[in-house]
Amino acid sequence: MIKYAILGFGVVGTGLAEVMADQRKKLSAAAGQAMELGYILVRHDYPDSPWRDKLTQDFSLIENDPDVAVVAEVIGGCGAAYEYSRRAILAGKSVVSSNKELVAVHGAELAALAREKGVSYLFEGSVGGGIPLLRPLCRCLAANRIDEVYGILNGTTNYILTAMAREGQDFQTALKAAQALGYAEADPTADVEGIDACRKTAILADLSFGYNIDPAAILTTGITAVAPDDLELAQSLGYAVKLLGRAARTETGCCAFVEPHLVPASHILASVNGVMNACAIRGSAVGEVVLCGPGAGSHPTASAVAGDIADAVRHRADPQVPDLGAPGGVLAPAAALASPWYVRADGAPDRVLAAFPQARPVYGSSGECGFVTEPMTRPALEERCKALDVRAFYRVLA
Amino acid sequence: MIKYAILGFGVVGTGLAEVMADQRKKLSAAAGQAMELGYILVRHDYPDSPWRDKLTQDFSLIENDPDVAVVAEVIGGCGAAYEYSRRAILAGKSVVSSNKELVAVHGAELAALAREKGVSYLFEGSVGGGIPLLRPLCRCLAANRIDEVYGILNGTTNYILTAMAREGQDFQTALKAAQALGYAEADPTADVEGIDACRKTAILADLSFGYNIDPAAILTTGITAVAPDDLELAQSLGYAVKLLGRAARTETGCCAFVEPHLVPASHILASVNGVMNACAIRGSAVGEVVLCGPGAGSHPTASAVAGDIADAVRHRADPQVPDLGAPGGVLAPAAALASPWYVRADGAPDRVLAAFPQARPVYGSSGECGFVTEPMTRPALEERCKALDVRAFYRVLA
Repeated sequence: MIKYAILGFGVVGTGLAEVMADQRKKLSAAAGQAMELGYILVRHDYPDSPWRDKLTQDFSLIENDPDVAVVAEVIGGCGAAYEYSRRAILAGKSVVSSNKELVAVHGAELAALAREKGVSYLFEGSVGGGIPLLRPLCRCLAANRIDEVYGILNGTTNYILTAMAREGQDFQTALKAAQALGYAEADPTADVEGIDACRKTAILADLSFGYNIDPAAILTTGITAVAPDDLELAQSLGYAVKLLGRAARTETGCCAFVEPHLVPASHILASVNGVMNACAIRGSAVGEVVLCGPGAGSHPTASAVAGDIADAVRHRADPQVPDLGAPGGVLAPAAALASPWYVRADGAPDRVLAAFPQARPVYGSSGECGFVTEPMTRPALEERCKALDVRAFYRVLA
Repeated sequence: MIKYAILGFGVVGTGLAEVMADQRKKLSAAAGQAMELGYILVRHDYPDSPWRDKLTQDFSLIENDPDVAVVAEVIGGCGAAYEYSRRAILAGKSVVSSNKELVAVHGAELAALAREKGVSYLFEGSVGGGIPLLRPLCRCLAANRIDEVYGILNGTTNYILTAMAREGQDFQTALKAAQALGYAEADPTADVEGIDACRKTAILADLSFGYNIDPAAILTTGITAVAPDDLELAQSLGYAVKLLGRAARTETGCCAFVEPHLVPASHILASVNGVMNACAIRGSAVGEVVLCGPGAGSHPTASAVAGDIADAVRHRADPQVPDLGAPGGVLAPAAALASPWYVRADGAPDRVLAAFPQARPVYGSSGECGFVTEPMTRPALEERCKALDVRAFYRVLA
């Protein structure tokens, strides 16, 4: 009987124990053999938990149990999660993880170690939560040169932007409502400043382009400055406002950034609302595919981690380690990427048209105007905007 | 050096040879070893083909070459494709296929034979073309009891319905335009009558519910009777018209059908236009995911088949055979499934409201009215409709 261990007993850890128990038979069939929960690593006691017999605060029990073949790390962060992942791999155990911070920062190192030790290192749940995303990218689309990946990679910000668009709320009001409903954390910084989306963008870029990207190097702008005026004007212009993480192949490596975007109303991503996530993948053979679903949450994320556990057990003879890329490759400056831009400015039509003769400005209820430019780089845009009182500008997904 | 063979040199076969050559290095990395094209089985000579050295009309050459580990069947139909697939498996070769008719009708038999012979039988390209769909369903979502799968599974009909909605064309005009552009065949029956979508629905049901479904038993209605009035009224009511293949778990097995549906404009599927396909999967842990992309075409389908070739080579020691289910299980009558319905009728508001007091009818340019009912079974709907001159009714996706 093969055992697995769960490290962490928070939202995802609890959900993982539940999902593994609920679909035990189906997962064992997928794994090719019966699997049993060996341990759940916790930081304090849960005497009333249905899994109280499995709880331990001592990682070395897990590390030294030869029957434990797979360790699921759902602690989060780069502290204990990193140490335990490393020790588990060194002890010859496969590691699966939903920890985007750890995978983005130390994933390549852990993957190399896993290859060396002949175990699997899988992290389907680290990007897109329950959406099947990394396995499709790496395996189903193996016949493609990946040219771009981009998507709505954070549910909290998408929930807030959706509420702002639907209810006409400002950012702070929408954030407070999201917090009250449990869709945003008490400290929402990592979500609203785009840091979470940045880590996921780094992982997608790593897998797509063969370079291991430092997430700290990815230009990241969150949604705190997005104003109700922007939502209103975007709608009038035929767009939705979405926080996109994007990574595109360039001649010397790739270009990656996280920024609010205007997405055409006819694009599938414009229909992805609330806490839903979606990721588009452009490949040389397939064209474009878009994968949508719940990007976070207890059971959806557990769904992805549990699938990885079954795969790691199934493929013990042929360990699975997605390629997170090698150091090197130039992260091209995002500013150099030409695109159409949305501009919100305070100004009479003649001033706007003097600076942007092709613009078709619309006016919002506050009297400010919004328009979309022809494609240009960011420096070119800033030069052209000098003659206007610009309040905001965002990229338009072309 | 491992060799693979391609059976068939039509649209998909040609694309497959191109994609395998274009991404040879990446595919070999995914497969874990170098792969080489051994043969392409053709029905006549192509003296100018870049692959002329690989062409053969003699299947026994492929069957008897011990270096050929994988055979890609992209012939289509259930004649030669069935015979060669069977002989290849019996000769100890893995078979991959994009042939939905063969997989829907003989897939379970070929899968059993593959298991017996210890080879892989994969068919990612048979449903959704280039969309990663079957591997996500079977592997990424292994931790889910699948409750429903439904989607836009045929690009030709979606192209026609999109053109009818956008251009106000009738079915025949839109079909002719689709044929002129190569999006519909000279004999469009299999597409427009829903037969192609029916086969794909059967495969999705097989993989989701554990019963092997006879596609001939799936109630199938195509789009030939959809009128411009329906597109117009649907839009006024806030819906798009889509041909959906649906399969849902029931207490005794599953329920499966193919019918035109009204899809709410806010649903992702309503944004899937033209030749694009999309499939939604509802699972016990993940909730709902939607996978979208090109559902047909040379290179997109080849993308899926090539990924299967790499996987079959990679996992020679642990053959991959998705479970197409066992005989048995009752295919519940679709008529018993309650849903809201769209009704188009010729009648004054008072007659409509007498029969459906809660209806909010809208009127189209031809003077006919359309409305959406509360959820009910099909027999209940037909009973209620007796007092009206009903011209058409379709299910509404709730």
